Amino acid sequence: MTERASPPPSLRARITAFVDRPAVQNFILGVILFNAVILGLETSDIVMERAGPLILLLDTICLGVFVVEIALKLVARGLNFFRRGWNIFDFVIVAISLVPAAQGLSVLRALRILRLLRVVSVAPSLRRVVEGLVNALPGMGSVFLLMGLIFYIGAVMATKLFGAAFPDWFGTLGRSGYSLFQIMTLESWSMGIVRPVMEVYPHAWMFFVPFIMITTFAVVNLLVGLIVNSMQDAHHEEDSEKTDTYRDEVFKRLSDIEALIKAQGKAGKR
Amino acid sequence: MTERASPPPSLRARITAFVDRPAVQNFILGVILFNAVILGLETSDIVMERAGPLILLLDTICLGVFVVEIALKLVARGLNFFRRGWNIFDFVIVAISLVPAAQGLSVLRALRILRLLRVVSVAPSLRRVVEGLVNALPGMGSVFLLMGLIFYIGAVMATKLFGAAFPDWFGTLGRSGYSLFQIMTLESWSMGIVRPVMEVYPHAWMFFVPFIMITTFAVVNLLVGLIVNSMQDAHHEEDSEKTDTYRDEVFKRLSDIEALIKAQGKAGKR
Amino acid sequence: MTERASPPPSLRARITAFVDRPAVQNFILGVILFNAVILGLETSDIVMERAGPLILLLDTICLGVFVVEIALKLVARGLNFFRRGWNIFDFVIVAISLVPAAQGLSVLRALRILRLLRVVSVAPSLRRVVEGLVNALPGMGSVFLLMGLIFYIGAVMATKLFGAAFPDWFGTLGRSGYSLFQIMTLESWSMGIVRPVMEVYPHAWMFFVPFIMITTFAVVNLLVGLIVNSMQDAHHEEDSEKTDTYRDEVFKRLSDIEALIKAQGKAGKR
Amino acid sequence: MTERASPPPSLRARITAFVDRPAVQNFILGVILFNAVILGLETSDIVMERAGPLILLLDTICLGVFVVEIALKLVARGLNFFRRGWNIFDFVIVAISLVPAAQGLSVLRALRILRLLRVVSVAPSLRRVVEGLVNALPGMGSVFLLMGLIFYIGAVMATKLFGAAFPDWFGTLGRSGYSLFQIMTLESWSMGIVRPVMEVYPHAWMFFVPFIMITTFAVVNLLVGLIVNSMQDAHHEEDSEKTDTYRDEVFKRLSDIEALIKAQGKAGKR
Repeated sequence: MTERASPPPSLRARITAFVDRPAVQNFILGVILFNAVILGLETSDIVMERAGPLILLLDTICLGVFVVEIALKLVARGLNFFRRGWNIFDFVIVAISLVPAAQGLSVLRALRILRLLRVVSVAPSLRRVVEGLVNALPGMGSVFLLMGLIFYIGAVMATKLFGAAFPDWFGTLGRSGYSLFQIMTLESWSMGIVRPVMEVYPHAWMFFVPFIMITTFAVVNLLVGLIVNSMQDAHHEEDSEKTDTYRDEVFKRLSDIEALIKAQGKAGKR
Repeated sequence: MTERASPPPSLRARITAFVDRPAVQNFILGVILFNAVILGLETSDIVMERAGPLILLLDTICLGVFVVEIALKLVARGLNFFRRGWNIFDFVIVAISLVPAAQGLSVLRALRILRLLRVVSVAPSLRRVVEGLVNALPGMGSVFLLMGLIFYIGAVMATKLFGAAFPDWFGTLGRSGYSLFQIMTLESWSMGIVRPVMEVYPHAWMFFVPFIMITTFAVVNLLVGLIVNSMQDAHHEEDSEKTDTYRDEVFKRLSDIEALIKAQGKAGKR
Repeated sequence: MTERASPPPSLRARITAFVDRPAVQNFILGVILFNAVILGLETSDIVMERAGPLILLLDTICLGVFVVEIALKLVARGLNFFRRGWNIFDFVIVAISLVPAAQGLSVLRALRILRLLRVVSVAPSLRRVVEGLVNALPGMGSVFLLMGLIFYIGAVMATKLFGAAFPDWFGTLGRSGYSLFQIMTLESWSMGIVRPVMEVYPHAWMFFVPFIMITTFAVVNLLVGLIVNSMQDAHHEEDSEKTDTYRDEVFKRLSDIEALIKAQGKAGKR
Repeated sequence: MTERASPPPSLRARITAFVDRPAVQNFILGVILFNAVILGLETSDIVMERAGPLILLLDTICLGVFVVEIALKLVARGLNFFRRGWNIFDFVIVAISLVPAAQGLSVLRALRILRLLRVVSVAPSLRRVVEGLVNALPGMGSVFLLMGLIFYIGAVMATKLFGAAFPDWFGTLGRSGYSLFQIMTLESWSMGIVRPVMEVYPHAWMFFVPFIMITTFAVVNLLVGLIVNSMQDAHHEEDSEKTDTYRDEVFKRLSDIEALIKAQGKAGKR
């Protein structure tokens, strides 16, 4: 596509310049925020009764602006557009809204509010926070894997042990997984789940109490580890910058002294 | 007002000196604590039956002391009074108590206990803690923004998806927001909310479980980030102070050595 | 008492030596652990039916050993005994057990298990952990004060606002304080307390949601601050020790160089 | 056994080489993951109805592979096999699966899923995470001891105080311990347990509120301390490595200068 030469480079450059202009960026940000309000008003029955068509029209206009913006970017950058993660993010979010929602799929209509997430890709400060969170994830991959392992093992064991007597909670692997997630968050784990289970299986606590201890320990470890790591990074960067300046200065001074001594040595020999 | 010259400077200076005197400050602190006891006794029906008028009189006297104190400060400092955040804080708290509460607005009467917060502006150690907490907030602005965004998106989606079937929990944006806050605190999220919702929409967990994971992750990130930052600040200040002293001493010694060598060089030449 | 000269110093010294002997210390530790088992068995109806008198006899013997140990220490050290916090701790714990519990005061009988806490004063590793926790508290005094303030203000406001309609939860200052503590721990705060309250006062969330945010924020701040502080201390101690060694060495070397230059300067002059 | 010389060393060496070959390791990993799927399918009634015998056969084959692998390792390394913790871990997990489960002991059948934990001993990244968690534990031994002490004391007191009136919750030491664990996790502690107890013993909060405060404080302390420690270790290692390089360089330069001065001193004397 980049090589088809249908749009001359000068046009592309002009489109790029136009799209990247601060005024255009701010206009897009404004449209996103306006659209957020519109989508919020859509949830109100009273507003929809009185001004339903207007709200839907304004929503369509907002969506139109996003489509035009992304189309312009696509034309300007060609396939390079998809090299940047945030562009793919924008593209998918807008694409979801374009799927015909008239089929009665209320889920797809509800997903349109995700458009508001475009604020993240447009506002640099939010983008940095999200990038920080996302960058922290891969370093924690093996802990996530371990958590997944513990959940899978726990779900299989719970299904086998308690599935027959408590089909609603532990009837299938999926239900066990959900119940174990609830137990991990400590929500009604004892009064709601484990005490009733213990009335049938008095030793059930031998499964659930260690499960809570292990997962709580792993989660706390995961989260704090995650954050502490990023703190350490920041700490080291700052620290080393400062130390490096100091070190360079010390070495410069020591070199000066050495040079001085050598110079005097030569002077003394003369 | 400062230039209207109605109170002569000498009077102002004398008032300032009087208000800032430790004895007066301690008297005000005593009145605040006494007022706290009085406002606590006001909640007891038995005490109010037996000594209601006395309690109310004592409360009015305390309020009078505060009004006089703030009036004196206003006279002494003029509009400069409002340049200090804590003065505005004191002014607003006392002003709330002066709004006529006889209108049956029990909320306004309840707000009078906020007067006890004046302890914070009077006691330096508490003031420092609050200032520390408040100063930490702006650095977290973008994470708060992101949390707000997630909540708004979550509330719109929950209202659209579950509002029709569960109007009490997700009927309006406000109710959805409150329910999502409850879910974020993990209170009865599963047994109380999500399990009932799943009986109507079996896939509801696909909305709630990720919501819990994202918000929990963001909240932990927010809080720990906040605190770790302030720790880092303290750490760096201490560290750099110590390092600076050390560095200065090293550089002084290196300069001494250089001067010494130069002096000997000159001496050698002679 | 130290000056009454009734026990000759030599006897005192011998008692001190006896009490501090490792064998005696280990014997006391053994008695504490044995007493823990005895007190545990006392909770079992079956055991008490079959061997009640024996259990009570063994308990009395254990108590006797503690009384003798503390009496010996008192004789040996006189009033100096009370200068050490852990001695007072032991004295109070044993004294509680000596209060006649036959009056049907089951609380006092239950408090006898606190004797097991003597393990802490005897085992150095546990003593260090507790001392670490206790030492961390004073540095957090002002945050505790602030928390107390928030709770008092919250309790007065909740009593005034919701006391009439919900006397069980907010009828008195004490009940409000307990309910607010429950809300702070996030236990059933919404389904159990705030949703029922909101059916009477629809705006009740405006009091409870900020209360939760402020107290959660303060508590997290308090706890993490506490721990981070102690970490920092450890960090700095280690760090400064290392840095100090390094610094001393650098300064020694610089002094050597200076001395060398001076020596050569003199040598050059000759 | 190593000295019985029944398998010649060359055979042993060849078995060791075979077992340690990456292809074999990956094959074992594949069998573990395949077995995980099989054990998951076993929980589904529909799958078991249609393909029950096949599933059980595949499970037996997987178990056979593990038995052969461990037998080979045992032959190859003799009793040295048991010197490595992870080998014992693998041995126990496989041994559990070999206990005849036909006795109707569904618990043993459920424990077979633990075989999936072998992933941890095979995948180095997971092994490192688990080793990190396990290594952190001993340093926390005294805090764990203290927690055990608090729980034991709390359980004895709760049983004595509330056991008669609430046998389901506090009837025996074990039930009290379980209820206190639930209270420590803050699950339904107030609405579920303490409020009902307070209807019989109005002062019960004097036991439970301090218990919550102490255990919460100790747990947070325990967990964060654990993590912060490991952070500090990482921090110091990195730090000291860098500092050591720097220090060595500074000392080298200072030595150079000293040598230079001495050399010139000699040159000056000549």
